[in-house]
This record gives sequence, C-alpha cells and structure tokens, in this order.
Amino acid sequence: MSVVSLARLLSVATLAALAGVASFGAPGALAEGATAPKNRVVMQVSDNDPAKWNLALNNARNLQSDLGAKNIEIEIVAYGPGIGMLKAESVVGNRIGEALGNGVMVSACENTMHGQKLTKPDMLNGIGYVPAGVVEIMQKQQQGWAYLRP
Amino acid sequence: MSVVSLARLLSVATLAALAGVASFGAPGALAEGATAPKNRVVMQVSDNDPAKWNLALNNARNLQSDLGAKNIEIEIVAYGPGIGMLKAESVVGNRIGEALGNGVMVSACENTMHGQKLTKPDMLNGIGYVPAGVVEIMQKQQQGWAYLRP
Amino acid sequence: MSVVSLARLLSVATLAALAGVASFGAPGALAEGATAPKNRVVMQVSDNDPAKWNLALNNARNLQSDLGAKNIEIEIVAYGPGIGMLKAESVVGNRIGEALGNGVMVSACENTMHGQKLTKPDMLNGIGYVPAGVVEIMQKQQQGWAYLRP
Repeated sequence: MSVVSLARLLSVATLAALAGVASFGAPGALAEGATAPKNRVVMQVSDNDPAKWNLALNNARNLQSDLGAKNIEIEIVAYGPGIGMLKAESVVGNRIGEALGNGVMVSACENTMHGQKLTKPDMLNGIGYVPAGVVEIMQKQQQGWAYLRP
Repeated sequence: MSVVSLARLLSVATLAALAGVASFGAPGALAEGATAPKNRVVMQVSDNDPAKWNLALNNARNLQSDLGAKNIEIEIVAYGPGIGMLKAESVVGNRIGEALGNGVMVSACENTMHGQKLTKPDMLNGIGYVPAGVVEIMQKQQQGWAYLRP
Repeated sequence: MSVVSLARLLSVATLAALAGVASFGAPGALAEGATAPKNRVVMQVSDNDPAKWNLALNNARNLQSDLGAKNIEIEIVAYGPGIGMLKAESVVGNRIGEALGNGVMVSACENTMHGQKLTKPDMLNGIGYVPAGVVEIMQKQQQGWAYLRP
C-alpha cells in the first residue's frame, strides 16, 4: 500500500516535471468533483433462506425509497445456496419482478447454475446473468461499489 | 475525497515542476498502469458451519479458476466460531491443504485461539496466523482488498 | 502507511513553501497528514441471533483492545431482524452500555423501528438512530470505512 501510493505520488511528480505543466492531470479528480458521488451497492445472496431473500429485497426497496431510485444503483447477485432465489418457482418471484421493474439489477451466477444443472429456462424471466457471482461481487467493490450481505 | 485528491495531485505537480527532478522514479505506478489491476479478496469465516467453510473454499476455487490463480490474491481469515475450520481435525482439512497448495492464504485468529485455549499444534499444518482476525479483515479492506463473507 | 502520510505532508508542505500559498486548498490533506491514519469499521447486525450480537460486541472489543480505542472508530448498525439487539429488554443490553461507554457508536434503524412499531422509549438508553440502516452502511463504506458483518 505505502509503496504503491508513494510510487503513484512519485509518478505524478515525474509526469509533471517532464510536461512542465502544473495544471497537468487530475481529469479524474475534476470529473469526480463535478458530479455528486454515485451511490452503488452490490448485495450478496448466498443463503438458501427465503427470509434472507426477502430481507435483501426490503433493503433494496429501502435504499431506493430513501435516496430516490434514480440516485442509486443496486445489483443483487445470487450464487451458491442462494441461487434458489432466482429459480422460476422462487417464492419471491413476484417481488423479483417488482425489483426489476424498479431498476434493480438482479444477477444469477452461471457457475452455480452449471453446478446445479440449471439453464436459463429454469430461471425467472428478466434477470441477468454473470459468469461467476463471486467475481462480480469482487469487481464491483473494486469499482467503488459498497457491499451488503443481508 | 475529490478535493483531497485534487489537492494532492496539484501539490505533487507543483513540487515536481519547481524542483525539476525528472528521474524521480515511478516504477510502481508505471507497472500498475501497464498491467491489469490486481484482484484481491479477503474472505471472512466466522460461522461454526462446515457448509459455510465449503462455500468459502468453493468461492476461492472459482475465483482462481475464473481469473487465473496468478491474477488474484485470496486470504481466508477464520475467527470466532469459525476457527474450527482450521483445527487439526477439521472436516475440511484436506480442502484447506489443497487451497494452500494453490496459493490461497489461510489465516487463523490468535485472539480466538487464545480464548479457546488452542495452540499451533492443535491447528492444521501450513496455515498462517494473524494476531486478530477482525483487525486483519479491516486492514485488508483499507488496503483496497474486496470483502466477501460466504 | 506512514510513508504515504509523510509523502503527502511533504508534498503539500513544499507546495505551500515554494508557491507561498499557505491558504491554498488542502486543509483536509494537511490535517490528514498531521495525524495517524484513522481505522474505521461499520459493523452490520441484521440477524435475530444473540450469538451474532455477542460476536459483534466481541469484535468491537477486540478491535479496540488491539489497536487502542483512540485509534479506531466503530459503528454498529442494527436493522431488520437485528433490531432486537437494541430493544430495552435486549439480552445484551448491559454489554451495549459498556460498548457505548468505550466510545463505540451504536445505531438503530428508524425504518425498521417504524415497521415494527417501535419508538425510542422501547429502545436502550444512550444509543443513536439513523433514518435507514442500509443507507448508513453504504455511506460509511463510501467514506472509506471497512465493513464487517459478524
């Protein structure tokens, strides 16, 4: 951490020295400063537990109602024992439809589906798919999304 | 955040422009820019539940198989009720050995061990130790690692 | 970590000294450079499970004892099925009092309270309140706090 940060500081110094432009760089910082920070949450569902599925859906609804649906991006990622949340016969199928209608992204893990011999016709309509739920959750965090495990 | 980042960039740029030290380095930052960002995940195991232990190990395996083991750093931290995952008689002892062989870091919380009167001979061979699991998990996140609680 | 702070402090100091603009921006960065980096953890309690409540409180205590209570900020956010942790009759009421006395922030979700027809007189003395637990947890992460779900 300290080495990388120091190296980053030094690299900016080098670039600035070579270019000789004190106003060089910082487009990212300027862009960041120009807009409100984006609210983004990736939610993990990995339990075979309808109470957890409902809690995740409640959390998504509360985030949208408190911040305004336009002001937050939410992705629910179901994988492992949580994949049942997104099967066609899911007890929360109706609520998933509502969440999708409200702009929540809902993603099923294809690794898990493969392991459980599930194909897209076995799943709810309208959902999305990711190759690997854990990779998706990690990458979203690395892109600055907050993490929530209901 | 943006103000701080901008101020930092400007201050370094000014330092470099005024000091004119073109050979000031930056190998780290250049390397960082030249390669894909590092994937790093710290996984928390704090349940006394072999199903969760297996899910954690599955998650680690999937992360490595999807991204390539060389392209991701994974640390599994077991603490509290999860410490049983790493005891010598653990039902997932064999899988822990495999994970270690594949380059996954596996760390036991010494705070928990002390509380349960466990010493290193009580634990699986080859694992690592951290003074406090929760401190480790916090610090890794502060160093940019993603967090996953299977 | 100290290297980063030092580099940041030096760069900002150099900027100010050479450019002679002591009043230019970056007061945040100066303040940041002048103190140790802050350890900050937001802990989620969303299970109706006293074992999880005790684990959360153990985690908070360990973080404070390992790092020094002055060197870490901890907020425990209880919401959904976890709200019982903070009711007046909570089985961990005594420990909550201790945690508050040690500087841990403890916050109840008003969304959850409303849904369960709970009002402040139903809750433990001394705790704090947030409009929505999930929003609090998301925002803290976006401000750089680590996340822990015991």
